[in-house]
Amino acid sequence: MIRDFARMTWPEVEAALALRLPALLPIGAIEQHGAHLPLTTDHDLACGVAREVAVRTGAFLLPGLAYGDAATAQSFPGTLSIRPDTLRALVVDIGLDLKRQGIPALITVNAHFGNRDPVAQAARLLGEAGMPVLMLDHPGLEELAEALCESTPAGPGFFHADEVETSMMLALRPDAVQMDKAAPEYPEFPPTFGMEPMQLREISKSGVFGDPRPSTSETGQAFLTGIADRALPLITAFMARHGLPEGPWPR
Amino acid sequence: MIRDFARMTWPEVEAALALRLPALLPIGAIEQHGAHLPLTTDHDLACGVAREVAVRTGAFLLPGLAYGDAATAQSFPGTLSIRPDTLRALVVDIGLDLKRQGIPALITVNAHFGNRDPVAQAARLLGEAGMPVLMLDHPGLEELAEALCESTPAGPGFFHADEVETSMMLALRPDAVQMDKAAPEYPEFPPTFGMEPMQLREISKSGVFGDPRPSTSETGQAFLTGIADRALPLITAFMARHGLPEGPWPR
Amino acid sequence: MIRDFARMTWPEVEAALALRLPALLPIGAIEQHGAHLPLTTDHDLACGVAREVAVRTGAFLLPGLAYGDAATAQSFPGTLSIRPDTLRALVVDIGLDLKRQGIPALITVNAHFGNRDPVAQAARLLGEAGMPVLMLDHPGLEELAEALCESTPAGPGFFHADEVETSMMLALRPDAVQMDKAAPEYPEFPPTFGMEPMQLREISKSGVFGDPRPSTSETGQAFLTGIADRALPLITAFMARHGLPEGPWPR
Amino acid sequence: MIRDFARMTWPEVEAALALRLPALLPIGAIEQHGAHLPLTTDHDLACGVAREVAVRTGAFLLPGLAYGDAATAQSFPGTLSIRPDTLRALVVDIGLDLKRQGIPALITVNAHFGNRDPVAQAARLLGEAGMPVLMLDHPGLEELAEALCESTPAGPGFFHADEVETSMMLALRPDAVQMDKAAPEYPEFPPTFGMEPMQLREISKSGVFGDPRPSTSETGQAFLTGIADRALPLITAFMARHGLPEGPWPR
Amino acid sequence: MIRDFARMTWPEVEAALALRLPALLPIGAIEQHGAHLPLTTDHDLACGVAREVAVRTGAFLLPGLAYGDAATAQSFPGTLSIRPDTLRALVVDIGLDLKRQGIPALITVNAHFGNRDPVAQAARLLGEAGMPVLMLDHPGLEELAEALCESTPAGPGFFHADEVETSMMLALRPDAVQMDKAAPEYPEFPPTFGMEPMQLREISKSGVFGDPRPSTSETGQAFLTGIADRALPLITAFMARHGLPEGPWPR
Amino acid sequence: MIRDFARMTWPEVEAALALRLPALLPIGAIEQHGAHLPLTTDHDLACGVAREVAVRTGAFLLPGLAYGDAATAQSFPGTLSIRPDTLRALVVDIGLDLKRQGIPALITVNAHFGNRDPVAQAARLLGEAGMPVLMLDHPGLEELAEALCESTPAGPGFFHADEVETSMMLALRPDAVQMDKAAPEYPEFPPTFGMEPMQLREISKSGVFGDPRPSTSETGQAFLTGIADRALPLITAFMARHGLPEGPWPR
Repeated sequence: MIRDFARMTWPEVEAALALRLPALLPIGAIEQHGAHLPLTTDHDLACGVAREVAVRTGAFLLPGLAYGDAATAQSFPGTLSIRPDTLRALVVDIGLDLKRQGIPALITVNAHFGNRDPVAQAARLLGEAGMPVLMLDHPGLEELAEALCESTPAGPGFFHADEVETSMMLALRPDAVQMDKAAPEYPEFPPTFGMEPMQLREISKSGVFGDPRPSTSETGQAFLTGIADRALPLITAFMARHGLPEGPWPR
Repeated sequence: MIRDFARMTWPEVEAALALRLPALLPIGAIEQHGAHLPLTTDHDLACGVAREVAVRTGAFLLPGLAYGDAATAQSFPGTLSIRPDTLRALVVDIGLDLKRQGIPALITVNAHFGNRDPVAQAARLLGEAGMPVLMLDHPGLEELAEALCESTPAGPGFFHADEVETSMMLALRPDAVQMDKAAPEYPEFPPTFGMEPMQLREISKSGVFGDPRPSTSETGQAFLTGIADRALPLITAFMARHGLPEGPWPR
Repeated sequence: MIRDFARMTWPEVEAALALRLPALLPIGAIEQHGAHLPLTTDHDLACGVAREVAVRTGAFLLPGLAYGDAATAQSFPGTLSIRPDTLRALVVDIGLDLKRQGIPALITVNAHFGNRDPVAQAARLLGEAGMPVLMLDHPGLEELAEALCESTPAGPGFFHADEVETSMMLALRPDAVQMDKAAPEYPEFPPTFGMEPMQLREISKSGVFGDPRPSTSETGQAFLTGIADRALPLITAFMARHGLPEGPWPR
Repeated sequence: MIRDFARMTWPEVEAALALRLPALLPIGAIEQHGAHLPLTTDHDLACGVAREVAVRTGAFLLPGLAYGDAATAQSFPGTLSIRPDTLRALVVDIGLDLKRQGIPALITVNAHFGNRDPVAQAARLLGEAGMPVLMLDHPGLEELAEALCESTPAGPGFFHADEVETSMMLALRPDAVQMDKAAPEYPEFPPTFGMEPMQLREISKSGVFGDPRPSTSETGQAFLTGIADRALPLITAFMARHGLPEGPWPR
Repeated sequence: MIRDFARMTWPEVEAALALRLPALLPIGAIEQHGAHLPLTTDHDLACGVAREVAVRTGAFLLPGLAYGDAATAQSFPGTLSIRPDTLRALVVDIGLDLKRQGIPALITVNAHFGNRDPVAQAARLLGEAGMPVLMLDHPGLEELAEALCESTPAGPGFFHADEVETSMMLALRPDAVQMDKAAPEYPEFPPTFGMEPMQLREISKSGVFGDPRPSTSETGQAFLTGIADRALPLITAFMARHGLPEGPWPR
Repeated sequence: MIRDFARMTWPEVEAALALRLPALLPIGAIEQHGAHLPLTTDHDLACGVAREVAVRTGAFLLPGLAYGDAATAQSFPGTLSIRPDTLRALVVDIGLDLKRQGIPALITVNAHFGNRDPVAQAARLLGEAGMPVLMLDHPGLEELAEALCESTPAGPGFFHADEVETSMMLALRPDAVQMDKAAPEYPEFPPTFGMEPMQLREISKSGVFGDPRPSTSETGQAFLTGIADRALPLITAFMARHGLPEGPWPR
């Protein structure tokens, strides 16, 4: 059993408040992921990782934020990006409402690079309002990729529609993956990459960064497990820093 | 087959742009729904209705907005409300990004009363920016309730965790409904109800408004069918008003 | 004598603070009202109704907000609409300043449909700041129209430049009414009316919705009286809910 | 006849658009004015001056903004101040809506010192949007005061509840003036006056700045006439600068 | 020695907190100043005056805000204007952060007319948050100009790139002044000057208002001395009004 | 000669517009830098690096933004942090005003980690408005540190008040460095460092991260030279990407 808001009723939440549980908020994006992965990939990954963490900890699992800041992919059809201020407001509103009802901490489980800054700004505002926020972004991902992947990444720490993400999707939503369309692309990054606003479509024709072909469901599960395992001690340290129960929490 | 962003890739969206399809955006809320329905009920209903409409029309089905403006239920644990300006911004951002990529109209499929005003404000802003928006809020619901329900509503047009919503949830997510906990409550509305901000918990102990006990999955499916059927001519009229293809669109 | 800010001095307000009176804020609009009624009609009506309530209760009567959110009539010359956020800010600012000086509650007396949402948002923000707000929108109007009018309304609860509004204007500002130009119009509402942003000029050539010809000053006074009478118990209930003196207050 | 929105209908406004008339917007405040003048004094004065100008020019006379930025008087009961951003938004919204319908220029007729900055900011924003704004603030007032008043002002250019304002109110709304309560007060200004935010109540017990006792209706009318006369060539120069008809405009 | 943040370390600031010193914030602009003065003139003057005051008082000298609201000069190349809301936010943020760390008052030292309103709005917001602000704008400048200048000003209180500013720049940054390019210009002001938004380039070809030719470094130093001397009693009165140590503070 | 706004007049800027030069905007912070470096260190470094780039390219050198987002150091006295939205607004305003006058590109020269996100958001907004922005953040710094420093950094890419910054300050403002107070500190980073908002004072007593003792002016100059040299090809590539002259530009 996990404490999933998609199944819980308000009396069940009320009964769990005394445990002083944190809440897990998955944050994804609606963004192109090549010709073989669905537009919701980052949302699916965020929810998948958060679920693994919820299983291990007993923390509340909140419904995810499907839409994120995907501005760099806006020139691909299907990408739907929200402004950073909108995402920040969403996280702040949810955080404040958790605090209001006595849920003492928020853990964001983010699966999309473009969300990092808005979420960090939200975390700061929530912190100033007395609501601690821990931001998880696939902890240990680079290390895991080095250990688990056959292919090489398109760039250091750059995993998009590649073996990493495709494997996790094969583990989570195999029927939404079209492996027959998976093809590698290793874009050439211009010298000012990361130093000026840029549409990724300028440098990747397919939207793939890396090689998704060696992906397997087993690799994907290993990523999910590895990330969630690395999240546990971070959550413990986070809760302890704020004088809160460290968990895991009884079911 | 439906045109579901949760399964589509960007080349598939690109290929469909020429059809000039509208996009369906489900909008729900995370809100108490008594002791027998999950907190995501309105989100589930919005997605369920939108899916029925997507099946009938071939329109794009977007990922739903799980969080809405549920301020009137904030005193129940588990409710997570976002500010009206945040919801408005979300809908505006998504609408503008649809327009940018050539999707010519947005249809919101709302399942929560508190979202109406923010969505209407967003629709106006989008309209001023040249993006037509049709707002569906369970069209024909009152009429259907009169025809389909055994129980009487708690108030005119007031359906919350009652036979209407419970039946639809039984049709959509039966395993998330705890019928053994379904109990009626017919709150007494104070004279200034609707004329001043009010926490619904002041007037309903359980969070139920009406009687969910006679709910059945069949009734629920009849609601989903009836609402979606009533949506079709509205969509046709809407698209025609804006000189757009009237649909349904070929798959 | 009424407690009218247009006549009162600051020492007179100070002397009345101990009574814990609420303040009445009329909210209107500058909007087309056909060829026979002035652009300020809704402002005039809001002030007229508020005055009747002030007479009956002894509450403070504030200067009215002449401008409202009249976006649906912007394609008629003479309409001057302010954005919903501007109206919301106005009401919030005034409410907070009333609170600051010890006036314990605000009663908005609105006479224009488009103002409802912004005023409701303001009421919520003020409520969160500890300032109770009661929103009066011609209470009992539909019932009164059924009882008092010869003509039929253009739609359920839809009264604009018709017998209802024209009669009240004949009672309040007869010299500003040009009955010789009063002519009926019963527009046909498109199927998506109320479901998408729409300029009313698309459906009404004259700006009249209904039939103003049977209007009389007596009918108008009966509306004013009827609305104000229905407001009294609502105010009493509102003040009681917030632990405030119920009024009427001595002069 | 004047072109007063409080009497005009939309077809009458439409008929006058071809003349390319500017619109006069009175801007006042709800603010303490001693024990002898009503809280609406600045609003009354703004409307009175604007009416005189409307008579002389044929320009549109808009309903006034009753509420202004009266923060320096907030410690007196009865003052109701709105934030500068709110006032700015109001003027911008109205200016843009005038422009939208083909009214080519806005003339603000302000009667309250605290409104100057927000109105100037609004004028700049409107100017950037292509809408010229002329800001009238009682042109020639100091000169007129020197010529017409028996009493001396409390400070250079500082006229508040004194002979200047009281006389104008005697000319405009004699029944709202309580001359028996008119008493002089010449506050001592602290050295940092005007250099830091300050509540005027700290320096004036009564709220009067100067001596209202010699006020007469005749003096008041001379002010109104003098100000309006000085406004005419300013309006002519303003309209000419923007290539617009210089007026006065035929009735 | 002065307490200059450009030289101080954090332990040195910490050690001085007990003295309850105010902080001096120079505010300038990047704006055309004719063919003989650099674009940073107002910034240089603000910093120069603030330094003189810091020398006399021992107050903290903060780094200056180089950019101001110079909208009226935007049609001259080289002017870089920020919006009034941006300047207001800057001053508010700095003021709140001073307050947070125990610095009990802020003194703005402004050298540019266009900054006055945004700074005054910031001062008000800071005051409401419990942070007193004294706004210095070259106190005594008109009087000093009358006493010290050979030339006459372009208008009452209007000093721009003229003998006043050029002399001060000769005293502060002689190597940045190109006296060989100093030439007089006495613009003709249109009748609506100050009553509508206006680009100064419309009325001054060179950007000079007055006659810079008689400028000398000695005159400039006399201005700096005179302004700083006049600032001292204002600071004393300001601090006393707020129950703070009056200074000067020991080094 | 460099094109420094602190020395240029408006006719000189105008004369250079035809060259289509970009403008360099230094962005720093007012932040604790241990007991041996002044609070303006990051501002000094940003200006120093930008000057080196201006010398090599002939680009416009703008006055720097002294204040940045230094929230993580707010618990040290002397730090003065502005909100990210304020910094973003500043950069946007300046960028738009550059564009307005025909300066075709902005290059930010940032020297403070906390500024990165707000500057990146500003760059995106400016890009959407047609103004290209290149963001330089000490390009090549890690590589240079490895080559030039005797000491080891406190963390990967983490240089604060250490040998890197102290050396550059010795090269730029030797009289503002108190080497006798330079002492090393190698903080222990908590496991959630970078994953939640955190005050650096919790982990560093002195505010130093690393060892400033081996710092020399020569090392500092080597950093300045190395960073500026690495900036040149980035600027060339940036300008070329936008179809602008690649520079360096003639003096």
